[in-house]
Amino acid sequence: MSSPLYSLKVDLPSDGINRSYPIVIGRGVLGDGEGFAELLGDSPVVLVSNDTVAPLYMSRVRDALGKAREVTEVILPDGEDQKHLESANQIWQKALEDHHERRSVFIALGGGVIGDLTGYSAACFLRGVDFIQLPTTLLAQVDSSVGGKTGVNHPLGKNMIGAFHQPKAVLIDLDSLKTLPDREFAAGVAEIIKYGCIWEPDFYHWLLKNSGALLTRNSEVLAEAIHRSCGIKAAVVAQDEREGGLRAILNFGHTFAHAIEHVMGYGVWLHGEAVACGMVMAAKISAARGQVSEDMVTGLINFLEAFGLPVEPPPAMSAEIFLRAMAGDKKVLRGKIRYVLLERLGCACLVDDVTSEEINQILMK
Amino acid sequence: MSSPLYSLKVDLPSDGINRSYPIVIGRGVLGDGEGFAELLGDSPVVLVSNDTVAPLYMSRVRDALGKAREVTEVILPDGEDQKHLESANQIWQKALEDHHERRSVFIALGGGVIGDLTGYSAACFLRGVDFIQLPTTLLAQVDSSVGGKTGVNHPLGKNMIGAFHQPKAVLIDLDSLKTLPDREFAAGVAEIIKYGCIWEPDFYHWLLKNSGALLTRNSEVLAEAIHRSCGIKAAVVAQDEREGGLRAILNFGHTFAHAIEHVMGYGVWLHGEAVACGMVMAAKISAARGQVSEDMVTGLINFLEAFGLPVEPPPAMSAEIFLRAMAGDKKVLRGKIRYVLLERLGCACLVDDVTSEEINQILMK
Repeated sequence: MSSPLYSLKVDLPSDGINRSYPIVIGRGVLGDGEGFAELLGDSPVVLVSNDTVAPLYMSRVRDALGKAREVTEVILPDGEDQKHLESANQIWQKALEDHHERRSVFIALGGGVIGDLTGYSAACFLRGVDFIQLPTTLLAQVDSSVGGKTGVNHPLGKNMIGAFHQPKAVLIDLDSLKTLPDREFAAGVAEIIKYGCIWEPDFYHWLLKNSGALLTRNSEVLAEAIHRSCGIKAAVVAQDEREGGLRAILNFGHTFAHAIEHVMGYGVWLHGEAVACGMVMAAKISAARGQVSEDMVTGLINFLEAFGLPVEPPPAMSAEIFLRAMAGDKKVLRGKIRYVLLERLGCACLVDDVTSEEINQILMK
Repeated sequence: MSSPLYSLKVDLPSDGINRSYPIVIGRGVLGDGEGFAELLGDSPVVLVSNDTVAPLYMSRVRDALGKAREVTEVILPDGEDQKHLESANQIWQKALEDHHERRSVFIALGGGVIGDLTGYSAACFLRGVDFIQLPTTLLAQVDSSVGGKTGVNHPLGKNMIGAFHQPKAVLIDLDSLKTLPDREFAAGVAEIIKYGCIWEPDFYHWLLKNSGALLTRNSEVLAEAIHRSCGIKAAVVAQDEREGGLRAILNFGHTFAHAIEHVMGYGVWLHGEAVACGMVMAAKISAARGQVSEDMVTGLINFLEAFGLPVEPPPAMSAEIFLRAMAGDKKVLRGKIRYVLLERLGCACLVDDVTSEEINQILMK
């Protein structure tokens, strides 16, 4: 394998089979034929992408997979509104038509939607085959491609149907960020600062200090930000793979974000945009409870705004609308909506006692 | 819990959470309120059944679950042709409409189709919730409810979409066999004798000796047959949960059976009927290879015929038709069709060198 800039490992308990896997961060990873040969042996591949990413990178990956390999290509329309069961079924249909077997490996080439969809398709194909993540968006690189959460949306809620199915590897090609539209780049930055907020004050301050370099996509700063983000995600997932407790802190901002996405219609706000707004809401409640300073909230808002991220919810969304939408979320337990707040900067906590008054308060500010 | 006739445990490695679970065999189990209370605590339930089984047992189970419990009922049409993704989606739809959460437990009340479908729905609902099997057919009791194979059929093949998802408990009510139609009872017997063929010559001979009592559904003989079958299945699954090797021997007769079901259309032959015929075919090939005696094959045929089970494939199915259908099966590895043959009575082996001539030979006999 060509030498990566960074590489780290997601450590998971074996269930008879070794389930730990590497995250490789480097340049030119998508075209690294040796790397693929090492990972895949002679396994046939189902390569899934969308019609935005495929024209950019499909032929590069296809070449790197080698001419001798059986490869089934599935190219779906781009967009969060494609993340539904019917898309998974299209992948299964193609894989079955081409007689793929249990030793075949599914590969996701794209952003979070393609990753979640391909992962879910792999989880359920012949009761589970291996898959590899090739995330091409910043958000997928620092968040959705790591940790094994896969799934599709249901008309009644986001990610309601899915599986925990860990990839065999996550290969992050920094070159793919060069073509990423600003809005999607910013959506990834929202998830990056999340890690600082919930886990590592040093990282949070480092990000604030380096926001200018991040904004111009300075490659060293970007590589370090991705590496540190993946490291935090890997540490959390290693401790709590199936979200029995700790892992839920990764949902900082997400309870509100899912409500926004649900009410506005999937894909109208990008997930990272909704998370940016949701984090500000959660930080404001944390501040109102005296757990973080107003300065911290202001710092977070300024950082997010520099990337053009929304920090206010859609004007039409009242506390009632939020509460109704959140009641249908996966994070509900015994009828109570669970929120991730900040206990202090760098330390998140799970609570279920946020009142509608508190939500009203922050909506009025 | 009311005292069961037999109870045994499926021992599985923990993946952080204890995954071993009990199989309880007794009378009146479906109405055992205390048993359910012990298993479920105050968890809400999604209770799935079909329109044949529900009129017989739904109210009994519903009462046993207790009046205070939130229960969502899903009643699907009966039949193997209902085992598709759309049925799973109906279960998800109902569960989401009723705001079920991660602590909710899915319960399958019915035969193999309901068990596989409910298990798959549970595996994918909010990325996995617990489920309990209440198998009401003999086949489900001795085979499909134990071992965590769940899934749905795809137009391109049987059980192509699914998950390994172990139940939290399998509760077998012997009383439910009283209402089972003869044809379905016989289908279960086919899976029972399978265990004798592949694992335990003593059990095989015991079954041949007790075929009369089994035919009249003598309750002691039936209970023992179920207990021994579950014991063998549990032992095999404990050793090889995800069919890395050993577990494949449980597919004795199934390579041919799936081809018959696929060609004839799902549900035309019952699964157990196709397995009966498939076992005879596999036994005949084993005999032709000198691995078992012709007497063994004759004994098996006589036993199966006593229950009215088919021992010959549909006349229209040539070796070519078999081979073409089997090429699409999950058991294919590197393009080779894998068969379970008998090395000797009570000992199965996996081979991939069965020739079309061998299949032709046994079709002509």
